[in-house]
Amino acid sequence: AMEKSYVSVFLLLVAISCALAAKDAGKKETKETKETTVKPKLPQTLSRGWGDQLIWTQTYEEALFRAKHSNKPLMIIHHLDDCPHSQALKKAFAESKDIQKLAEQFVLLNLVYETTDKNLSPDGQYVPRILFIDPSLTVRADITGRYSNRLYAYEPSDISLLYSNMQKAQKLLKTEL
Amino acid sequence: AMEKSYVSVFLLLVAISCALAAKDAGKKETKETKETTVKPKLPQTLSRGWGDQLIWTQTYEEALFRAKHSNKPLMIIHHLDDCPHSQALKKAFAESKDIQKLAEQFVLLNLVYETTDKNLSPDGQYVPRILFIDPSLTVRADITGRYSNRLYAYEPSDISLLYSNMQKAQKLLKTEL
Repeated sequence: AMEKSYVSVFLLLVAISCALAAKDAGKKETKETKETTVKPKLPQTLSRGWGDQLIWTQTYEEALFRAKHSNKPLMIIHHLDDCPHSQALKKAFAESKDIQKLAEQFVLLNLVYETTDKNLSPDGQYVPRILFIDPSLTVRADITGRYSNRLYAYEPSDISLLYSNMQKAQKLLKTEL
Repeated sequence: AMEKSYVSVFLLLVAISCALAAKDAGKKETKETKETTVKPKLPQTLSRGWGDQLIWTQTYEEALFRAKHSNKPLMIIHHLDDCPHSQALKKAFAESKDIQKLAEQFVLLNLVYETTDKNLSPDGQYVPRILFIDPSLTVRADITGRYSNRLYAYEPSDISLLYSNMQKAQKLLKTEL
């Protein structure tokens, strides 16, 4: 007898609200033009342009495992290719030598598709959105950016705030047992 | 007040039983020798050697989304870098032109870390293990290999069986509504 198991537990939520209103309609046109050109399409990288010299984990499960076992904090970047705010933040992130250097001290994950773990969206699903997780597997909901309506969003001009938040995440929580 | 959310829902199960008894201890030594040489370590690819010319998805969530929306079956390969059976199957998989060509018709995902979805381990977690999922998001538990104790395991010599199983997966299930 053929056994069927539906993977319905995994809701196909594609959470997509780009963090802040798109300012320049011009960019969209540029993007579409680019997409018609043929890209050398492969192989795809895990860095996706957020730092090709850094080591990136593939999945949330891998990232949690590595954070726990390496005792390093985990930094999760949610982003989207067609979100100009994500792209602008990525550029600032990749070009900042300080950020790239400090990022070596983290377990790193960048995601285009949301996980099913609600702990990763304390105030909703939007991009760009950066969350830190302590090696004790506690979401550092206390490490926030400047925007009260989207606590974990950053703009390119917030790069130094992001840097100091990364430093904050480096100070590990004590296990409370 | 600092809010802590533990990501305990995500059990850190690292499922690792390498499918069939390792036959050649010699290989292990070779592997260890190789690891002492300095590799140009980055950037990591999603293909991990299973077919650099193919398009690989990053996460299970992404793979389900793409399977559903492209109406292509999803092929999930669970493997481990330090499992000689996984490595041998990978070599056969990557070197088979027929397999590589047919694989273009699939949404593809290779995973080193298990997901939390139990539907992906109908008879346990082991590697190598290949499962097909219909675009209707039904696990094709009926598509199995040769080994009754590990239904979704394949050896390099099973490549032609794997090919015919891929063809089977191409015949999509009808939605039953």
